[in-house]
Amino acid sequence: MEDVRVTFLREDNIDAPILIEGLPGIGHVGKLVADHLIHELDAEKIGEIASLHFPPQVLVDEQGVTHLVKNEIYRYEKDGRAVLFLVGDFQSTSAKGHYVLAERYLDIAEDLGVKRIYALGGYGVGHLVESPRVLSAVNMEHLRPEVEAAGGSFENAGGGGTIVGASGLLLGLGEERGIEGICLMGETSGYIVDPKSADGLLTVLSRLTGIEVDHTLLQQRAEDMEQIIAKIQEAEEAKGREELSYIG
Amino acid sequence: MEDVRVTFLREDNIDAPILIEGLPGIGHVGKLVADHLIHELDAEKIGEIASLHFPPQVLVDEQGVTHLVKNEIYRYEKDGRAVLFLVGDFQSTSAKGHYVLAERYLDIAEDLGVKRIYALGGYGVGHLVESPRVLSAVNMEHLRPEVEAAGGSFENAGGGGTIVGASGLLLGLGEERGIEGICLMGETSGYIVDPKSADGLLTVLSRLTGIEVDHTLLQQRAEDMEQIIAKIQEAEEAKGREELSYIG
Amino acid sequence: MEDVRVTFLREDNIDAPILIEGLPGIGHVGKLVADHLIHELDAEKIGEIASLHFPPQVLVDEQGVTHLVKNEIYRYEKDGRAVLFLVGDFQSTSAKGHYVLAERYLDIAEDLGVKRIYALGGYGVGHLVESPRVLSAVNMEHLRPEVEAAGGSFENAGGGGTIVGASGLLLGLGEERGIEGICLMGETSGYIVDPKSADGLLTVLSRLTGIEVDHTLLQQRAEDMEQIIAKIQEAEEAKGREELSYIG
Amino acid sequence: MEDVRVTFLREDNIDAPILIEGLPGIGHVGKLVADHLIHELDAEKIGEIASLHFPPQVLVDEQGVTHLVKNEIYRYEKDGRAVLFLVGDFQSTSAKGHYVLAERYLDIAEDLGVKRIYALGGYGVGHLVESPRVLSAVNMEHLRPEVEAAGGSFENAGGGGTIVGASGLLLGLGEERGIEGICLMGETSGYIVDPKSADGLLTVLSRLTGIEVDHTLLQQRAEDMEQIIAKIQEAEEAKGREELSYIG
Repeated sequence: MEDVRVTFLREDNIDAPILIEGLPGIGHVGKLVADHLIHELDAEKIGEIASLHFPPQVLVDEQGVTHLVKNEIYRYEKDGRAVLFLVGDFQSTSAKGHYVLAERYLDIAEDLGVKRIYALGGYGVGHLVESPRVLSAVNMEHLRPEVEAAGGSFENAGGGGTIVGASGLLLGLGEERGIEGICLMGETSGYIVDPKSADGLLTVLSRLTGIEVDHTLLQQRAEDMEQIIAKIQEAEEAKGREELSYIG
Repeated sequence: MEDVRVTFLREDNIDAPILIEGLPGIGHVGKLVADHLIHELDAEKIGEIASLHFPPQVLVDEQGVTHLVKNEIYRYEKDGRAVLFLVGDFQSTSAKGHYVLAERYLDIAEDLGVKRIYALGGYGVGHLVESPRVLSAVNMEHLRPEVEAAGGSFENAGGGGTIVGASGLLLGLGEERGIEGICLMGETSGYIVDPKSADGLLTVLSRLTGIEVDHTLLQQRAEDMEQIIAKIQEAEEAKGREELSYIG
Repeated sequence: MEDVRVTFLREDNIDAPILIEGLPGIGHVGKLVADHLIHELDAEKIGEIASLHFPPQVLVDEQGVTHLVKNEIYRYEKDGRAVLFLVGDFQSTSAKGHYVLAERYLDIAEDLGVKRIYALGGYGVGHLVESPRVLSAVNMEHLRPEVEAAGGSFENAGGGGTIVGASGLLLGLGEERGIEGICLMGETSGYIVDPKSADGLLTVLSRLTGIEVDHTLLQQRAEDMEQIIAKIQEAEEAKGREELSYIG
Repeated sequence: MEDVRVTFLREDNIDAPILIEGLPGIGHVGKLVADHLIHELDAEKIGEIASLHFPPQVLVDEQGVTHLVKNEIYRYEKDGRAVLFLVGDFQSTSAKGHYVLAERYLDIAEDLGVKRIYALGGYGVGHLVESPRVLSAVNMEHLRPEVEAAGGSFENAGGGGTIVGASGLLLGLGEERGIEGICLMGETSGYIVDPKSADGLLTVLSRLTGIEVDHTLLQQRAEDMEQIIAKIQEAEEAKGREELSYIG
């Protein structure tokens, strides 16, 4: 088996100038946004990526059928305007594998004529965030004004921050190939899957790409999550009172 | 040394349409079943597999003679009906090695004309199980009715489950080569070697393959294990009573 | 991607007989000295080194622009006397990668005519040191008198010590290529970034290389660090007194 | 750098029918015996082995001179009877590296005409041993009587034991090349460097090889160690009495 194996489901007319990456990460923020876009746009799956740098396992679906762990490439086109998505459930199991996979993702991007990559992720802050910002980074300085105009914040810059894994390497290695890279990171606690942060990130991404979709499903998931958190907090407070009554 | 080295003890007439994999895993359920079948059928060892993805060690046998750690291929044939077994004491020591080994196992399977693989294992549930089910997964949807008819359960499907290691990859990577894959997993606590779960798995496997063997040895081991568990439980209860008597 | 990728910003007239390595390590002593020299000499960046043996990440700078993690080569020349610097924020993420990177660093050194390498680092002793020594090692015995004359101590020799990572391998593998190697290690606690130890190391290095620079910035950082340590000690003593007053 | 780099200090007349391996392991028993033999026989160093599977470091000697970590090959010849030694301070840092190194050691052995390997090690039992046995394993059954006649015990056989690392793989992979392998393991606690166990092992090895040397140095080290242990035990007993006197 090669290190990475890419399979296209069709070969013709699959170019696109834009690639949106939403692999799993902090709060699954990037994954939530990319998966939501694919669902709302009814994007077409055009490729699959298997790799011995992924965990050695299969997933069992609802029919009891196994599926080798893979990342996937989707494509959406409307009015001659096309966009690719890189999504899936896995990143590399090793440091070296991250480099090998990112270079291969960029090979695909180059082959399909991609000029710009949006790398989506979360930005963990360690506490619940009332109004999550969309923190940003770019791999070429001229991209910054455009991101700021769309509502992306650069308040994270300058603190010696790093971006780890596929999102980071797509920007870092992409820059060497002349591919523009914009990383959008929804502020999130890091403790929960965070559709609220994803909702905010989607707004900024839509302004940048011009791709508008309905937010309802994402917002419903955000409300569900809010209620779960509220119940947990209530339970903890009740427990606190109980403990106090013992003392009292 | 190559990554994986396969040695056949003879080359002629070693084809078979079916491969049964029983490498070590949870509760050693799959290994117990495969080893029992090899013993009862008096299957012939036809090949050995060494790999630098196995632990770097030798086993010392009862004569004090060392043996490089290896997995083994056995073959059984009766009335023109042949079956292969993949057994041994080891899986890969690394994530990548699992992929390398599974691809090689599948190379062997293809070379020997295998059309279907039965991957045997355990399904850990974290508590003792009175009547262990045989939970199942298939790598092609058309296989499911056959497995259900033989008593395999698909109640595990749909929970986002995964199958890790050789069993999982034989199905996942086998599907890409057009080899049918059926994974049978005996429900088991995960704390003990579980011949009782293996006994149930063997029943389902026999219905699927038409290969019937005597269960006596497996059932004796199951009874022995039941007695060991009963003694442990008794000892723990006695200890509990003793502690209570201190208090009382 | 190759294992290691070296990019030169210019090709002509970049030779030098001396290479000073200051990659991160204990107390960041070596890094502090090399970075200080580059700053004071206004040395020119002539090359970059990327590698899949570095962590899979990018750094975000103060403009919000990402940079692939890289080590860097600087060069300084005055009055026909040139010196190279190998600096950066990373060492290998794996044992094997250390060898691969060190061999590549030595390839660069050989290509650029380097005859001697100064490998700078810290020597952790586990407690604060009032007057840090500059402990030393050489890869050829004839180098020792020169180092001792410059104030380098060999009191660490003979205790079965080891030098791990880039510094060690540049000496060990460099010796095989006939490149002289001198390792200078500023004594340091190992708990803090240690500009005071770096200040002492710089003095010895200047005597050896004849390269003199102003120490003011390094000494200011050392004083800042002294004050931070003093405040921490004060706070701990205050806490101690407080605890005593409870008892009293 | 190649995975393993072997350098011979001379090429002519370096064959020998026997190789004695004494790399570090439990209680350093094998290493003590091999190093003692090399010292007493004044064997000649004929080769060095460096590898990126060894730790990435250099050793600093008593002169402050660094040495790349290496294993070494020594040779001794008397009356036309020659023996090789494989010694050093390192085994592989990874599972895969153990295989790569062992195959290379065997390449060297084959090149130099080795017909038999003695792999020396310790056999950890977890408690101090009054009269340590020399437990044994062989890679071909016909070797057993010879080992037993020399005082090697096979009482360890049959317990499902394994031999890990270089010693194990030299036997396991050596068998595939038709090289006889005898593993001698001095019984030892596993807590201390054990010259007493080494002394016993040397006696058995001498009977097998016909190579006799003076044991004095080894026995002195064993006596020194006995005294250290006695002092520790005394101190612990004194501490125990003290604690009792508090209670009393």
